[in-house]
Parts: sequence; structure tokens; C-alpha cells
Amino acid sequence: MSQCIATYRIYDDQADFRKKATSIAVGMTVGSWTELPQAKREAMQKHLGEVVDIQVNEGWEPGSRYADVSIAYPDINFSRDIPALLVTVFGKISMDGRIKLTALDLSPDFLSAFPGPKFGIDGIRDILGVHDRPLLMSIFKSVIGLNADELRAQFIRQALGGVDLIKDDEILFENDLTPIEQRVRMCIQAAADIEQQTGKKLLYAANLTGRTSKLREQALRAIDAGANALLFNVLSYGYDVLHELSSDPDITVPIAAHPALAGAIYPSPYYGIAAPVLLGQLMRIAGADLVLFPSPYGSVTMPREENLAIRDELHSAKLRVKRSMPVPSAGIHPGLVPRIIRDFGNDVVVNAGGGIHGHPMGTEAGGKAFVQAIEATMKSVPLAHYAEEHEELKAALDIWGGEV
Amino acid sequence: MSQCIATYRIYDDQADFRKKATSIAVGMTVGSWTELPQAKREAMQKHLGEVVDIQVNEGWEPGSRYADVSIAYPDINFSRDIPALLVTVFGKISMDGRIKLTALDLSPDFLSAFPGPKFGIDGIRDILGVHDRPLLMSIFKSVIGLNADELRAQFIRQALGGVDLIKDDEILFENDLTPIEQRVRMCIQAAADIEQQTGKKLLYAANLTGRTSKLREQALRAIDAGANALLFNVLSYGYDVLHELSSDPDITVPIAAHPALAGAIYPSPYYGIAAPVLLGQLMRIAGADLVLFPSPYGSVTMPREENLAIRDELHSAKLRVKRSMPVPSAGIHPGLVPRIIRDFGNDVVVNAGGGIHGHPMGTEAGGKAFVQAIEATMKSVPLAHYAEEHEELKAALDIWGGEV
Repeated sequence: MSQCIATYRIYDDQADFRKKATSIAVGMTVGSWTELPQAKREAMQKHLGEVVDIQVNEGWEPGSRYADVSIAYPDINFSRDIPALLVTVFGKISMDGRIKLTALDLSPDFLSAFPGPKFGIDGIRDILGVHDRPLLMSIFKSVIGLNADELRAQFIRQALGGVDLIKDDEILFENDLTPIEQRVRMCIQAAADIEQQTGKKLLYAANLTGRTSKLREQALRAIDAGANALLFNVLSYGYDVLHELSSDPDITVPIAAHPALAGAIYPSPYYGIAAPVLLGQLMRIAGADLVLFPSPYGSVTMPREENLAIRDELHSAKLRVKRSMPVPSAGIHPGLVPRIIRDFGNDVVVNAGGGIHGHPMGTEAGGKAFVQAIEATMKSVPLAHYAEEHEELKAALDIWGGEV
Repeated sequence: MSQCIATYRIYDDQADFRKKATSIAVGMTVGSWTELPQAKREAMQKHLGEVVDIQVNEGWEPGSRYADVSIAYPDINFSRDIPALLVTVFGKISMDGRIKLTALDLSPDFLSAFPGPKFGIDGIRDILGVHDRPLLMSIFKSVIGLNADELRAQFIRQALGGVDLIKDDEILFENDLTPIEQRVRMCIQAAADIEQQTGKKLLYAANLTGRTSKLREQALRAIDAGANALLFNVLSYGYDVLHELSSDPDITVPIAAHPALAGAIYPSPYYGIAAPVLLGQLMRIAGADLVLFPSPYGSVTMPREENLAIRDELHSAKLRVKRSMPVPSAGIHPGLVPRIIRDFGNDVVVNAGGGIHGHPMGTEAGGKAFVQAIEATMKSVPLAHYAEEHEELKAALDIWGGEV
């Protein structure tokens, strides 16, 4: 019997966890069991959830207890989409006390409906022609209220710094000053001009926004205008919308998933959905080619072990779909590059906003400092040493601190 | 300048809350301010967020502090849809420490894009012809694995009990045994047969599931098959999907919003979105005619004050759209009816699953016991007194307890 297994961390100082687990397994599937007549049980057996594992632990506080409980849900009970999965495994019980969804082990049958990222790590590398180092992304800064010329000028400063990807600010919605088609046309033209000089490819992820039923059409218009990547605030629309966009044959560009709103769901130890599921596994199966999440290095932080668990979900060979690029974000400066590569390996995007725009010599120099930091790290040269002959890197290390 | 105001509860023992508030107001709008030249400031002023209020409080634990901070976001910055609103007011900052979104004060301009519930309380009452008492809803129980005949039989037992609405189980997805069109046709026919006997109208809320882009089509097919209401797991799809469905002129039936997954978002004091926003205001503006949420009475509980705050959002005349029916759910038995009416007034749905199906005399008697409890309460007759001449009510009070 094909099943998807959900694991929960349940905090309860009094509970009989075995009883609780059974009540979830029965309650979220066939509803009742002990009162069923024998004949009916046989027909219902294939729909019945099953308690797979219970690990009871002592909590931090004296006398407190929690249990990691795994329940198997027969695939026959729900359709092959993320809304059905989440409603089945965490619909009603999300409201039943201190319970957090910490892991999902999805069956091949369920996963068969999920083609996954269309490009993934290798596809993005192929587009960019970069295979041997982490990628570098910069984020538009303070774009609300900018007109087209100002936006274009900022794009060019970022591109000249040598970044591989530039992404829209996730709070830039459709607006009169820089509507998506105009923005895309302008930025892609600027990228082409700069490629003429530098020989360097560039992906620009334009923010896909608006009404749900119009997103596909808007994406196609952006692609017609030349867009070669899209940014998408997945959690404000639901995973299924990403799943539909990413598996649409006409949407022929990589999609970067932004984690906006994720902080409403993952940080509590007692409630919500753990970050590796929310921003790792579900984003990947829904088809995100790149996934942004709060880095462990900056001001908006997530613990390092959670970051690495997200990385594992995005990189793991266990899922038979393309791997997604992890993009740990916020608080990134060049001095962190060796550490990012130690934590994530080469298959990571070094993503900076303030760490590029805030460079004392300007945005272009900010990009160059990161390029230099990546070069140095790939050559195993200490940043401080490399900085002796690279003034942009030197200036960055001087203000933000050196290798950590 | 038209603005939407978001209020946050921010826990931080050390923070300079004024500084923090300003950093949100600037960071989530124009991005930077102090470094802008004067000329640019003038152009950007209309995009700049504004700190409206800061109330610092002592927390429960000694030395702990929290602040209620209100920030006004200019409407010009975002489009007229809930994804854009949420990404603007709680996208990135949801991940910035202990911060919970506790209230939204939305501008008339923003709200102009939200027609709200198509039916609302009065519309549902008009359909049912019931204006002078709370409505009664029952929930299908243990429906996974049931075949069409079994489902129909359960529907009839519920209908004969005298309920006004019957809703699908939210975990009943498209399945071979009881696909939505067949289910609807069968149940609506049964409802019509029973109406012939009893003269009583009945709404059956069929669960709308599947892929996002097919929901409209599926809803229309269900309506063609006779569906007179729909159930929808809003949070697994996003509010915008509900907004689009509810404002679609071809979707001509009330929509009941199920709170599945809400427990991942509202219960923590430190993170997430407060229940009155999540399950009250946003459900109503997105167009839910009925909104289910965990009652304060049962095993899956929410504090009473949160329930009443949801009720206020659903009933409030402040929003210029139709009012939504509150449906406090879980743990409801006939003895609670007077208390539900005290808490919610008449404009509430008394909604029971186990409290109907678990009646010692059966499902039909379970419905009757509730009908009797509502009659008694409307006549200001104590339940125990009314039960003397109503055996179904008496049996219910005997096993679940009397008036509370």
C-alpha cells in the first residue's frame, strides 16, 4: 500500500502519546475504527492511517515532554496535489494543541505528479555557462517609487559588478512607473549590452505578481518581453500555483521562490511547519529552481542546522527531480563567502543586497568584491591575502569584516 | 494619502522599539531614507511607510518586553490583492525575530477591489428561509472509503435530523467512489426528497478540491450538478483563490471557508498571524459566506476572546461588505447551544460532527436534539426543562452534559 509519512513533534506533558498518535492516524483518515463492524473494517483497511513511529523525549523545561510521531497516510485518500497533501496531514490537527509538522516522506506514487524544477542547479548553470563555482546574485534595492530610468541605471550598476543573477525586490508589484513588461524589456536589453562588453550571461528574475488566474498570462507576457527568470512569492499564493507554473511547458524560464511570509509558519518550536519542509522539500517538488531563505549569517537569521537541512532537501538525490539552488539570504557580505561555501558547497547562490549596494565604492564595486571573494575561495586563497591586490574586496573586508 | 495600517506585536527585551518600527516603515517601503538627497525625498514621500503608534508593555516573564507597533503602508506601493498586501506588510519581516501580525486596518481604496461575500449572513438566511434563530450544520463523518450509497444514507440521516446545512469532510478529495458531481447530484436529490416531506430547505457544501487552475471549472460542474454551496480549504490555496472564486459571477452559491492549516499560523504568541485577521477579516474580504474556526468549547480549542474577536471581524459593520456567518466548530454538543448563542448571538451556525453522529439514538436523533436545544434557547426555556418533553435532547444532555 502506497503511503506518505508525516512526522510531527508534539509537546504535551500529560499525553499518552500512543493514544494521541492513534487518534491522529484514525481521525485524519477513516474517522473511526473501533466501532466499525468487522466486515466494514476489511473494506476500510486500505484507507486507514498507521502509526509508524513514536519517540518520546524530555523537553528543555523540567517535567516537559515531547514526542516525534510518524503517521503513514494511504495515498488512496488524497489527490496528487500539495493542497490535498497538506490538508490531509496537517489540516485539522494543526489546530490541535502544540504540534509542528517536522518531516514528510512522500511516496513515489504521490511524487509522480511532480515534475519538479524545470532547470534546477544544472539547468541554471548551463544557461549561465558557469559550472565550477557558486553563483552570485544581487537584489534590487529601494525600487519602490523609482522610474524606469532609475531602475535601469541600478540594474546596470549591478550587472557591471559581474553578478550572475539580479532579482527584483519581492515588494515590487505591478505599478505605473515600471510595469513588468517594460522592466523586463529594459533590463534584458541592458544585460545584452553588457554581455557584449563582458561576455557574461545574466539572469534577471522579474517579480510575478497580481491575481492568481492571471499569473500564467503575466508570466508569458514577461517571457515574450524577454524575461529569462521569474521571482515568485510562493507562500502568498500557495504551492499549487508554483506547481502549475513550473510544470507549464510554455513557462520556459527558471523560477526563484521567495520566502515572504514563511516567518509566520516555521520559527515556533511548537507550531507550524519546519523550515526544511516549508522552504526545502515542498518548494523543490513544486518546481522552484532557486529557493531563497534567511541565512544563518545576518540580521534576519535562521539557525545554521536548519539552513543545512533546507540545503539537504534541495540537494538530496532521494527526490528524483532536479535539484534546486539554495539561496541563503540577508546579511551577506564578501567576508562570509568562504563560510557559505563551506556550509553549502559550490551549489549555492551567494545573494547580496546591502552587501553590494552598500559598498563604500558603490554598487558596481560591491559586485566586484563578491566576485573576488568567490575567486579567492575557489583558489583557496585567504580573502585578506587576495584583498591585497583587489581593492574592492579590500574595501568590503574593511567595513564588514574579514573571513569568518 | 491612502494607507493600510498593519499592527504587530514584537517581543524583544532589548530593542529600541522606535528604531525598530522606523526600520520596518522604511525598509518595507522605500528601503532607505536618511541617505536620500532632499530632491529625491520629495518624490519618494508618497511611498514612505509611517510609524503610526508604538505601545511598549511589560511581558509575562520578568524583564521581558513587547510592543504593539502600527505601521501605515501607502496603498500606492502595492496592488489590490491579498498576496500583495501580505507580502508588503508581513513578507520579509515575518522572518525578523519574534513578530506577530495582530491587526490590519485596510483603506477604502484597497477594499474597493473586494466585493466580499456574495450571500453573507442575510443571503444564506434568505436561501434557507430562516431568519430568527441560529442555523444548524452537520458534518459528514468518516466518509473516506464510503461508496455512494453509504454516503447518501449518511446524508439522509443528517437531513432527517432537521439541520440547515450539511458539509463535506474537508479531507474528502476527488475520488473514484464519490466524485463531486455524483455526490452533489445524489445529495441534492435526497435533500429535495426530504424537503417534500418536511418543507425544510437544506444547503449541502461540497468540498472543492484539486488543482488551482481547475477549481473554477470544478465549481461550475458541481453547480451544474445542483450544488447549492461549496466548502473550500482556503489556506491551502491562498486567499486570492477564494477572492477570485467568490467574486466570479458564475459561482452562484455560498462558499464556506474551512480553517485547515490555520493552526500552523495563528496559535503562537510570538509568530504568525492572529486568528481574527487570519480567520476573520481576510476570510470575509476574500468572500467567505461562512467561516469555520475552532470553538472555545471543545477539544480542539481556541481561547474564547479570540473566538469573539473573529466573530467581530465577521459581523462588524466597519467593513462595507456583507457579513459572514461564524461557524465555531469542534466539541459542540446540544448542552452548549445556550452558551454559543450568548457568545455569538443568533447570527451563528451551530456546527456539530460527533455531537450529532455520536447521539445514543443515532444521527437523526442527534440532529433533532440540536434543533430542540435551539428551540428551547430561543424560547428562553432551560434545556433541562425542555428535555423533559423531548427525548432526543434529554439523551444528549444525559451523555454530554447539560447547559453550561
